[in-house]
Amino acid sequence: MNTAEWAERALAEAAVGQEPLSREEQVLERIERARRRKPKVTEERVTMAHGAGGKASRTLIQAVFVDAFANPALQRLDDGATLDLGTGRLVFTTDAYVVSPLFFPGGDIGDLAVNGTVNDLAVCGARPMYLSAGFVLEEGFPVADLRRITASMAAAAERAGVRVVTGDTKVVQRGKADGCYVTTSGIGALERPVTLGESRVRPGDAVIVSGPVGEHGVTVMIARGELDIEADLTSDTAPVHEAVAALLDAVPVRMMRDATRGGVATILNEIAVGAGLAVTAGERAIPVRPVVSGACELLGLDPLYVACEGRFVAVVDGDHAAAAVRALRRHPVSEGAAVVGTVEAGPPGMVLLKTASGGTRIVDLLVGDPLPRIC
Amino acid sequence: MNTAEWAERALAEAAVGQEPLSREEQVLERIERARRRKPKVTEERVTMAHGAGGKASRTLIQAVFVDAFANPALQRLDDGATLDLGTGRLVFTTDAYVVSPLFFPGGDIGDLAVNGTVNDLAVCGARPMYLSAGFVLEEGFPVADLRRITASMAAAAERAGVRVVTGDTKVVQRGKADGCYVTTSGIGALERPVTLGESRVRPGDAVIVSGPVGEHGVTVMIARGELDIEADLTSDTAPVHEAVAALLDAVPVRMMRDATRGGVATILNEIAVGAGLAVTAGERAIPVRPVVSGACELLGLDPLYVACEGRFVAVVDGDHAAAAVRALRRHPVSEGAAVVGTVEAGPPGMVLLKTASGGTRIVDLLVGDPLPRIC
Repeated sequence: MNTAEWAERALAEAAVGQEPLSREEQVLERIERARRRKPKVTEERVTMAHGAGGKASRTLIQAVFVDAFANPALQRLDDGATLDLGTGRLVFTTDAYVVSPLFFPGGDIGDLAVNGTVNDLAVCGARPMYLSAGFVLEEGFPVADLRRITASMAAAAERAGVRVVTGDTKVVQRGKADGCYVTTSGIGALERPVTLGESRVRPGDAVIVSGPVGEHGVTVMIARGELDIEADLTSDTAPVHEAVAALLDAVPVRMMRDATRGGVATILNEIAVGAGLAVTAGERAIPVRPVVSGACELLGLDPLYVACEGRFVAVVDGDHAAAAVRALRRHPVSEGAAVVGTVEAGPPGMVLLKTASGGTRIVDLLVGDPLPRIC
Repeated sequence: MNTAEWAERALAEAAVGQEPLSREEQVLERIERARRRKPKVTEERVTMAHGAGGKASRTLIQAVFVDAFANPALQRLDDGATLDLGTGRLVFTTDAYVVSPLFFPGGDIGDLAVNGTVNDLAVCGARPMYLSAGFVLEEGFPVADLRRITASMAAAAERAGVRVVTGDTKVVQRGKADGCYVTTSGIGALERPVTLGESRVRPGDAVIVSGPVGEHGVTVMIARGELDIEADLTSDTAPVHEAVAALLDAVPVRMMRDATRGGVATILNEIAVGAGLAVTAGERAIPVRPVVSGACELLGLDPLYVACEGRFVAVVDGDHAAAAVRALRRHPVSEGAAVVGTVEAGPPGMVLLKTASGGTRIVDLLVGDPLPRIC
């Protein structure tokens, strides 16, 4: 049953019983009506929110890109496209990186770009193999910085067991870029006979987060120096392919996604909407380091929406939740893994968060961009 | 025999005969000495020339990127990397597009990006299959322009029989980009049992250009409106995969490259240097439309260095040169194909152009960037 059918049944049941819609049902119906609308970009110009990974991003992707390039592989809106070349299945993915500043505690645009592409391949179930790198450089960019970035990319590639095999460089005039933008694409081989995706998710499944959330986003915000905050915090940028492989070997996995732009909250929404089911999560169960929650409070941010670059969300068979967490905790990159919620039948497409204070709130996609150019 | 050995032999022969080096030999020796130097970026900051596809680009690629990412697939510096995934060979390629203006007669950044990646796959001998697209958008960019670009990409993909299967979009603040940059990557299947590359080139081979050169570059320069020139000229942006396939089916092909940044002159240099042989071309044999040569004269440009986006250079067995041209001329995209030169034993690494006036001049890699942001 999809969300529309669910809402209709709620309406029908209310009609049969001659009962007016409850206040909650009215709210849900209004939300549902908004969600059913065909995505439409109402703005005439691109805004920062179109790049933030939330509502506006999703609308732009669906109304412009998916509409133009209509094909099944793209429509799935996965982290990578699964392709069959006749000789074997592979995953193909791409990401543009515009992080500011280029260098931050724990990483830089170089290892961020490599790890991000490695992780997109990994959460699609593939073994990361080959990367490409396209650079847009601003005239006047220090060659020494470019060397730092490429050295960092090479080290990250080495660590993840992938090779940067092809690339391109363009230079634009001063003021037409911000130092250096990198777009990495990646190819991985799908060697396991698993099929992953929201459509595999079932009520009763467990939702797992691989470690404490929000460290990358908060680190970059602080590194910008616009905020008078100091915190002993480094980016969580790291390759997760080994942890993912261990998880796939240990338990039946339904789907995985890495929690970058838009954070864990966005992924939970993608799961709920994609599966046509509900995700119920416990606020206290989601691991957040005190330094991150403290900084988020000062910054007016919800850590659930803050980007991670070395964390992923996995949905696994509920009976194997404990085994999944055990398998993940054996790897340093996911030693903080925890079950954060469960999948339920309804309300479909909704993420409900049990708050620390005992209430329940709806966690929706982000509106606007509180954290521009975080990756 | 490589260029160094050739130069040494020339020196040795001169010594044996007790003859001083001729003036020509001295010049060649000086050039050779410069070429033998390990590439080194001497500038502290990135210049426009680093993006121009000439000497500075090559130095940056070798001294920074190849040095950092050292691996055999990358070191070949082909238009794409040939990979073996265990289940079949494929080609993987990427290109960043920063053309200004975004829209020009005959095309826009969208079809340019799709055709460019399709062509890189094709000249590596692969059947183009899947594309990714990474966008960097400037805040305030008109959504209508983005739609025009994606529609144009979709039409180009349809025409080339490829699918855009994955993508990413980032937005940067006003003044941190120039409207829209696109990075496309592509995957193609190597279905033919051919091996292509400079190392296959032999003395006696014929060098073919698939059509009139320089139309894309001159069109973009005129479209900028900085020059008070009007010309009835459109970009040559087009997919060449069908013409390439026809050529591969018709004759023994040694190698191919598409003549984008740096133009045909740069490709001829890459052939000569890569093969350790000489390329002798006839200036009159290289097809250039009068409107292009006229505009180039006014702009102070040599059409041999001006980018094409739907032309490629092929080296084929000399005995099959006429058959190669016939096969190409059957396709509209290469109906202007012509034999432009031959491969000779020496001087290795040199491109010698027989000028219209009867002289011979060395065609070297371009220094500086007379045509910034042409693609």
